[in-house]
Amino acid sequence: MAEITSYDFIIQPQDVDFTLRASAASIINYMLNVAGTDAHRKGFGVDALQGHSVTWVLSRLAVEIAAQPKQYEAIEVDTWVNEFNRLSSTRNFRMRQDDNILAMGVSQWCMLDMESRQAVDMTKLKDVYERAMVDEPSPIAMPARLRGVEAESHSSRPVVYSDIDFNRHVNTLRYIDLMFDALPIERIENNNGMRIDINFLAEALYGEVLTIGVAAEGDTWQFEISSNSGKTLCRAKIEFK
Amino acid sequence: MAEITSYDFIIQPQDVDFTLRASAASIINYMLNVAGTDAHRKGFGVDALQGHSVTWVLSRLAVEIAAQPKQYEAIEVDTWVNEFNRLSSTRNFRMRQDDNILAMGVSQWCMLDMESRQAVDMTKLKDVYERAMVDEPSPIAMPARLRGVEAESHSSRPVVYSDIDFNRHVNTLRYIDLMFDALPIERIENNNGMRIDINFLAEALYGEVLTIGVAAEGDTWQFEISSNSGKTLCRAKIEFK
Repeated sequence: MAEITSYDFIIQPQDVDFTLRASAASIINYMLNVAGTDAHRKGFGVDALQGHSVTWVLSRLAVEIAAQPKQYEAIEVDTWVNEFNRLSSTRNFRMRQDDNILAMGVSQWCMLDMESRQAVDMTKLKDVYERAMVDEPSPIAMPARLRGVEAESHSSRPVVYSDIDFNRHVNTLRYIDLMFDALPIERIENNNGMRIDINFLAEALYGEVLTIGVAAEGDTWQFEISSNSGKTLCRAKIEFK
Repeated sequence: MAEITSYDFIIQPQDVDFTLRASAASIINYMLNVAGTDAHRKGFGVDALQGHSVTWVLSRLAVEIAAQPKQYEAIEVDTWVNEFNRLSSTRNFRMRQDDNILAMGVSQWCMLDMESRQAVDMTKLKDVYERAMVDEPSPIAMPARLRGVEAESHSSRPVVYSDIDFNRHVNTLRYIDLMFDALPIERIENNNGMRIDINFLAEALYGEVLTIGVAAEGDTWQFEISSNSGKTLCRAKIEFK
């Protein structure tokens, strides 16, 4: 059994939106960067896995944001893994300023064979993982499984250079930008907190065209991002408080 | 007279492109962040100026990139101001790993009245500025004054939430993304260094539509970004080595 690990950061100018507060995408970016660094330190990072031609893939994510930190403010991000089975591992996050919790997250990851692009059995990581497990429940409800969306409006654009990561796939954060860019800007400006659930279903490559579908019901917004190759890439739900 | 000041950083996952090297936009972002931090420390940052309802605006920038640092590598950015007159101030940058220089930059700034949006006389900052001036020449040729471009191809898209800064204007870095996104991706992947000159001419607001025009001659690429309101926002030239 291990302990919760904490990482310190200062909110940078590129993290904030026009309100000078860290955007939801930046808050998620801090969580995902901490996931990468912490996995590396515990011996099961992308670098250690690549020797086995497998890599981590984020499959589902839920984040609840109570307050967005401001430019140049100091934050701490706590992270811990508390579940692990053959096909999925659960990593948790808490972003805070001292005892004041700003945001919490739960992420589910699977391991992908880089050749076949299929999920692989994680049993061989059991020993490393058991040493890293923390006896602390997830801070919020697990990510929801999201169904197809009957979109009321659509917009499309090609995948470009600045969208892609080292796999030449669209970066996770870009999907989050696309969803928030499709919201009325006043809804983002005057929010009192939100919960975001995201399911990552397939990967989009450089050259494909992305279509973003949006449907709203009350203060719940649903999104479906698909590719011109016919794949559904990502579904998400944002519930404002 | 003052000395050159240096700032330390580690290249983060969000800074790198699909080659796992810091993108040109990220290299410029490090330079501009250092400009903001250094101006703040020397007493003429945006925060000090806002009491006088004026702000800094970047008017021209030249950057020469010899090599792009890789993810998680440590870098240092040196900065110094070496020129200052009524209408413009010159700030220089050198990004390096020990003695190995990766990139150099020269930026020219003017002071804008936030009400009238007109340039203001900087004479009143003379005392603060003279204490900050460094007796060291600019590391590369001054930014070129760029003329209109006869574009061969165009693409357009609206300004969205994730494009804008606290003025609700399109962020400087986004223009650089738009230019690199318009290049053949192989040209970025296999570069042996480049020089970038940019002139910032006007500001685009949320809701406007941006059009990016591109013209190529040999290995020199020219760009002009304009708005549906008829303004030319930005001109740039990228020369690959």
